[in-house]
Amino acid sequence: MKTERSRLRRKYERGHYDQDAIFAFLDAMPLAHIAFIDEFGLPACLPSLQWREGNHVYWHASSAARSFKAMAGQQVCLTVTALDGLVFGRSPLNHSANYRSAMIYGQAHIVPDAQKAEKLQTMFDVLYPGRWEQLRPMSAADLKQTAVMGLEITEASLKIRDAGPNDHDIDGQWPVWTGIIPCQMTLSEKDDDPHNLTGAEFDPRLKNTRLG
Amino acid sequence: MKTERSRLRRKYERGHYDQDAIFAFLDAMPLAHIAFIDEFGLPACLPSLQWREGNHVYWHASSAARSFKAMAGQQVCLTVTALDGLVFGRSPLNHSANYRSAMIYGQAHIVPDAQKAEKLQTMFDVLYPGRWEQLRPMSAADLKQTAVMGLEITEASLKIRDAGPNDHDIDGQWPVWTGIIPCQMTLSEKDDDPHNLTGAEFDPRLKNTRLG
Repeated sequence: MKTERSRLRRKYERGHYDQDAIFAFLDAMPLAHIAFIDEFGLPACLPSLQWREGNHVYWHASSAARSFKAMAGQQVCLTVTALDGLVFGRSPLNHSANYRSAMIYGQAHIVPDAQKAEKLQTMFDVLYPGRWEQLRPMSAADLKQTAVMGLEITEASLKIRDAGPNDHDIDGQWPVWTGIIPCQMTLSEKDDDPHNLTGAEFDPRLKNTRLG
Repeated sequence: MKTERSRLRRKYERGHYDQDAIFAFLDAMPLAHIAFIDEFGLPACLPSLQWREGNHVYWHASSAARSFKAMAGQQVCLTVTALDGLVFGRSPLNHSANYRSAMIYGQAHIVPDAQKAEKLQTMFDVLYPGRWEQLRPMSAADLKQTAVMGLEITEASLKIRDAGPNDHDIDGQWPVWTGIIPCQMTLSEKDDDPHNLTGAEFDPRLKNTRLG
């Protein structure tokens, strides 16, 4: 996982390179941002939902998406971040954020057509266990519209800050409140589609979806 | 705001280019991801907190951060995303996410030393109104440790999906629950630092911090 590129140069005590920690965080937070070089030759940053299977992360888009054309076979950096808290110190410099952030570097590849359905099923199995089996199966036309991109997790880091302010020594006598306000993604109550058929029941497992 | 690069090619009905809408979203969500070309000549995606002042976004890091050296004077893409909901259709293809995502393209610049303190104060005024005045003022050493980066908001888009599943016509008779599970960033109860001085009171305005 640790390479010259993925190695943290500063605040290296925040860096983790063990596979289990990186995999666990990827499984907990689907929202990713992907840096790639666009068709103008310039860096672009695209949000997407990611899922992991073995030592790969995957994401999908329309087959027509220009971003996928630009990413195929090219170097990308996929970053997954969870903001976990706001940290309040006694000076501006000692304000910070608690977070977890995984960065994966490597060459993106388009998943071959023959494996697309299987990868998309994995996405559902990871995000919404049990739902795939309840759905109208994907048609050939559906599959044709969808492209899946993959990235091997070989060059990666997980950076974690999880602490209060650290200015007790310097500014401990400055009379301002210090501490943390934790934050997290939360799910609200479901919003039923008005076109739901009578008897189409909500699967309570969907409430367990993890977003951080 | 709308240029050849920032123009949405697909699902263009989700695209917004008016300045007010983009500014309002940037003010509501500080978490950003920035795509840039790193010192290896490859795309990297870095999380940071951003704030807006006029027609610029700003972010900061240690003066020693290698990312800042790589970004200075170079093209970047700063993306701010809020995940607003998970959308459940009747087929895998008709699952989606509701979100708002702003992308700003342009050349990043390092804020000159003489303006750094002013920009950092703006960050606090945007994120935590009233707190700057309560803090131990920044010292010359603090300022030296901190670098601030800016990006003019000229080439930008805001993409919004805010709807339920749209497969009523095709799959309306498939008997599975459909709808939305909204999601959002929420703040939890404050966590007081054990080193707080007696009488250092929590400013309740901090509870109003916006994260989406």
